[in-house]
Amino acid sequence: MTITITAFESSPDRGRGLARDMRVRWALEEVGQGYDVRLVSFAQMKEAPHLALHPFGQIPTYEEGDLALFESGSIILHIAERHEGLLPDDADAKARAISWMFAALNTVEPPIVDLSMANVLERDKSWFEARLPFLEDQVRARLDQLSKRLGDNDWLDGDFSAGDLLMVTVLRRAESSGLLEAYPNLRAYIARGEARPAYKRAFGDQLAVFRDSQAAS
Amino acid sequence: MTITITAFESSPDRGRGLARDMRVRWALEEVGQGYDVRLVSFAQMKEAPHLALHPFGQIPTYEEGDLALFESGSIILHIAERHEGLLPDDADAKARAISWMFAALNTVEPPIVDLSMANVLERDKSWFEARLPFLEDQVRARLDQLSKRLGDNDWLDGDFSAGDLLMVTVLRRAESSGLLEAYPNLRAYIARGEARPAYKRAFGDQLAVFRDSQAAS
Repeated sequence: MTITITAFESSPDRGRGLARDMRVRWALEEVGQGYDVRLVSFAQMKEAPHLALHPFGQIPTYEEGDLALFESGSIILHIAERHEGLLPDDADAKARAISWMFAALNTVEPPIVDLSMANVLERDKSWFEARLPFLEDQVRARLDQLSKRLGDNDWLDGDFSAGDLLMVTVLRRAESSGLLEAYPNLRAYIARGEARPAYKRAFGDQLAVFRDSQAAS
Repeated sequence: MTITITAFESSPDRGRGLARDMRVRWALEEVGQGYDVRLVSFAQMKEAPHLALHPFGQIPTYEEGDLALFESGSIILHIAERHEGLLPDDADAKARAISWMFAALNTVEPPIVDLSMANVLERDKSWFEARLPFLEDQVRARLDQLSKRLGDNDWLDGDFSAGDLLMVTVLRRAESSGLLEAYPNLRAYIARGEARPAYKRAFGDQLAVFRDSQAAS
């Protein structure tokens, strides 16, 4: 059955692979599942047809026959449940890998998004400079804890899993802050993710979309 | 096998059921699974034994024999996978319910937590008053979208699911902001959740912990 995901027609990250379609592309590449991409403009994302797929007007969405899903975490869990390679077979190890999926999205990503969105939306506000160290401390607290847990391991819990896939994509969103410089093991962890052939294919595909959008404009 | 969760020894919400152990208690009550609770102090949460269970030093955790999980979303998914009553049997309907679990935690909860944490941590900052409308707009945007999607339905997608359980607990964290007043259907949705016998048992149990902590101090 054909799988169709949505992605930004013109990504605000300028092809750096920070938009959330990258996660889903990477997961589909890891399991060797082909897919189509439907590009949506910012205007289209707020219109009824897209809101029927995604109640919060975001990307990515996932369509497979009559099934429509939203939220990158749930899409990746769906892919991982139906293919080998993203979650361990052992029931306990699988449950732990899913804990890392939720941790990436619900504990590590929010302060990273807060910091990067403040840089975009609040840079001209009177409070921006005063508040920045506060935001950075919140990101640093999570990076400290994650770095300690990862230690010298390649991945968070045994073999590479969907938990690592999400965590690497979340950490990449903190790269522009410079805060990762203090954590060599987290930088090596990101590099291990980026070195995976599936990552490279997914990255190339999303970059091609951005380049096409630039060539067309 | 005995299930043990962790909860705050003395909850900062003063027994209002806003801490994340409430979600797990409610899920366990919905499926009729008994459990033990180990209370942890704020000091203990940052010490090695607890960090071994929860790398980010939070509650709740979940222990079942040799299995240890963290993140309320993953714990509830684990419970829902092993018992009837929290996820539909139909595979597509189940995947959609899981989309709502991730949406509650990754799309709706972050701006609500940002607003409530600003009220706690930034109330004495120079920028607090200027920034408050900005934070409220971000919460309102999500409530608008959620209210439109819910419409006149009882639950987000068919029968009550773990997606509703998480969404109701997330929305309750916005109640003190007053922003929910503008959304009668969301208030009725929360009330439907709170009216469930399993919710009431879970709420009573976490309230008893808080009352005991007050009586002992």
